[in-house]
Amino acid sequence: MTRKKTFIVLEGVEGSGKSTQSLLLSERLALEGIDNLLVREPGSTNTGEKIRNLILQATELNPLSELFLFSAARSELIQNEILPALKSGLAVVCDRYTYSSIAYQGYAKGLDPNVISKINSIATERLEPDLVFLLDIEPELSFGRKISDSKDRFEKESTEFHNQVRKGYLSLAKSNPRIWNILDGQKPKKEIQELIWQKVSNIIA
Amino acid sequence: MTRKKTFIVLEGVEGSGKSTQSLLLSERLALEGIDNLLVREPGSTNTGEKIRNLILQATELNPLSELFLFSAARSELIQNEILPALKSGLAVVCDRYTYSSIAYQGYAKGLDPNVISKINSIATERLEPDLVFLLDIEPELSFGRKISDSKDRFEKESTEFHNQVRKGYLSLAKSNPRIWNILDGQKPKKEIQELIWQKVSNIIA
Repeated sequence: MTRKKTFIVLEGVEGSGKSTQSLLLSERLALEGIDNLLVREPGSTNTGEKIRNLILQATELNPLSELFLFSAARSELIQNEILPALKSGLAVVCDRYTYSSIAYQGYAKGLDPNVISKINSIATERLEPDLVFLLDIEPELSFGRKISDSKDRFEKESTEFHNQVRKGYLSLAKSNPRIWNILDGQKPKKEIQELIWQKVSNIIA
Repeated sequence: MTRKKTFIVLEGVEGSGKSTQSLLLSERLALEGIDNLLVREPGSTNTGEKIRNLILQATELNPLSELFLFSAARSELIQNEILPALKSGLAVVCDRYTYSSIAYQGYAKGLDPNVISKINSIATERLEPDLVFLLDIEPELSFGRKISDSKDRFEKESTEFHNQVRKGYLSLAKSNPRIWNILDGQKPKKEIQELIWQKVSNIIA
């Protein structure tokens, strides 16, 4: 099957079901005969996974420094994995992208949005996804899904912090409805999976 | 003694004597009754030292990702150490600064100078040193000073790479003689130390 570039991003607060739905989407694409690459941010490269561990375990890290670390992992992921995959005709499913930086370091931690925007543009070489799915859920609900003693730096943040993250995502989604889709993260897994597949199958048809 | 802000940077290729001269300068300042902070880049903060190890041990790392990692460490160093020290009246001696990014990721690795400049401005909040000393030496000479089996990622680069780094430093130094001082890194340690002290004592007088 010949297709245009297909780059799909899933975003949402911790415990929203992003990773599960990313995996389900990747499997569904494969079932339909569409070769694809499933990656996560930060991570999915040798250096990216090391950066991921460094970020999640850091005891001190200012928001700008955090943004630089995410951008380092992002640049590795784009240059080594995403761009080569798209170029060779694979679809790419990415669990988190630049929008996480805007929601977390921007909305929740107060970093200047212009700074984030400049750095995101440089890190991504302006590569934008064709579709973004926001798995929208109240942080207080989604957090019940995580076992408390396995919480990382972000999961340990306050409910107010995660409410700001959610607010950021909703604002981003509403500002660009051409590519964003807001899904109710409280719906059953299967139902969300179908809603995602409807949209994805439209663009790869 | 009341003084203006005193922020001094030492730059140079691997083995040029930067770290030795940074330490000697810090000791001399202390001897003269000037409280000071000695830091190195990347590093000198909890997270910065972890980033340093990650950079030096990475098996794959594109120049942009490298720049982001150095910038993450730099932002931590500036916000947690350098700015508070300057604010409390300490002099600051810094072993490497933004110029290393221009020389290494720019001149030697070919990253767009405008990209480096934008990211450096964001990472430093435009904090510029009062004096920069370039310990200039031919890489082929300076490298004899390092024990070969302890070489890190940068030390393992080719002579041509380090010649480009040196060229970058010389170009930076010549473009801003108001703050830069080029010192012959082949001169005896004591002599270099005196040349540095002459300049420093002028600005703190």
